[in-house]
Amino acid sequence: MSTLILLRHGNSDWNQKNLFTGWVDVRLSEQGVTEAKRAGELLAESGLAPQILYTSVLTRAIQTANLALEVADRLWIPVKRSWRLNERHYGSLQGLDKAKTLATYGEEQFKTWRRSFDVPPPPLADDAEWSQFGDERYADIPDAEFPRTESLKLVIDRMLPYWESDITKDLAAGKTVLVTAHGNSLRALVKHLDGIPDDEIAELNIPTGIPLVYELDDAFRPTAPSRYLDPEAAAAGAAAVAAQGKK
Amino acid sequence: MSTLILLRHGNSDWNQKNLFTGWVDVRLSEQGVTEAKRAGELLAESGLAPQILYTSVLTRAIQTANLALEVADRLWIPVKRSWRLNERHYGSLQGLDKAKTLATYGEEQFKTWRRSFDVPPPPLADDAEWSQFGDERYADIPDAEFPRTESLKLVIDRMLPYWESDITKDLAAGKTVLVTAHGNSLRALVKHLDGIPDDEIAELNIPTGIPLVYELDDAFRPTAPSRYLDPEAAAAGAAAVAAQGKK
Repeated sequence: MSTLILLRHGNSDWNQKNLFTGWVDVRLSEQGVTEAKRAGELLAESGLAPQILYTSVLTRAIQTANLALEVADRLWIPVKRSWRLNERHYGSLQGLDKAKTLATYGEEQFKTWRRSFDVPPPPLADDAEWSQFGDERYADIPDAEFPRTESLKLVIDRMLPYWESDITKDLAAGKTVLVTAHGNSLRALVKHLDGIPDDEIAELNIPTGIPLVYELDDAFRPTAPSRYLDPEAAAAGAAAVAAQGKK
Repeated sequence: MSTLILLRHGNSDWNQKNLFTGWVDVRLSEQGVTEAKRAGELLAESGLAPQILYTSVLTRAIQTANLALEVADRLWIPVKRSWRLNERHYGSLQGLDKAKTLATYGEEQFKTWRRSFDVPPPPLADDAEWSQFGDERYADIPDAEFPRTESLKLVIDRMLPYWESDITKDLAAGKTVLVTAHGNSLRALVKHLDGIPDDEIAELNIPTGIPLVYELDDAFRPTAPSRYLDPEAAAAGAAAVAAQGKK
């Protein structure tokens, strides 16, 4: 038996500008900072005490973890980071305005890019303005395997090996694990944990800044339905995420 | 050849109250936050790019590292923490007012406790208000070895094994290493690196919030004198530290 806590980072500078972000390393907005601190309060009130932190290598997720753990008085726990927990790479959509993209390509194409399970957007060229190819934080990814675009399926393909190689090891040791990451890397993990079918995962919207708690058995399967630490705010937050990009 | 950057955390809540802190887990004051951000600016301006971070398990050092790396845009680097980088355990002085302690015990005893190489203050009882015995972050220290008080010599004795087992491994791999820690754990490291005799180390005052840079050879020995990234502020800061606790 072990406890897994998932936390999606809050509002970023590019959320506010309504741009596709993906792997572009933007920061939390003031609203996102407030959300992260609130997550720390929820953790502290819950009595759940994360014993190890996992984050992506994107600043907005790391900021969120640092702010939440500072509020929860657990800044001292060990930390592991991996690009495998990064947000979905949004390909050539990275840096584009969401509303303009919707207007240019139409609702069907827009929804396919945002929510289809296995259709990635067009790839981003390595020399494009918003490419992260060559960034030293990704030095351990072979050039040929460096993501230029990703579907949710591809996110699962690169996230699950890390879940199995690292995160489950700490769970197996009985640790309470906090994973602070992104809408799509967490959706990938929730899909795996809850066994959500490919054609239903698009409807799952994980709200930002509200810890989502799983109790797992020795096979890392939920022993009960997962729960948000603030269910009311979570429902409102999920609805807000679902409405994103709509006119 | 590798680069080592030492950073002492800035002003804390208990510095402001003029209390002996040691292992008590207090936070940065507003001034300390400003100092940490300034350290990040100095790092960014220097062009030095830390590739891995080492911290103690005390919140004020971790806050300092997080703030500095956020400003320097390097929040994503891997992190390792160890109690072996903690501040000196101040024994039964922890939680006491420095000025009152000076008045009660006199200047000679006060200076001995603060600056002698190998005379620790009286030990702190495990059930004392400011004891950290039993804190889960120290679960890996056997009870019998848990520090109840420390001299600088004892800090060296518990810090150097970690330097050798972990930090030098990353230096040997050619990484630029940032160590964010405390007045006495960094003094211990500087003593080792610069070969400062036991009877001279008391005079070494490391200023807060100013990165101190070492270029090291393959035997982890300095190839040139170390340098502060802001030498003028460092000289003023060292003088301020030396004056601490004086009437």
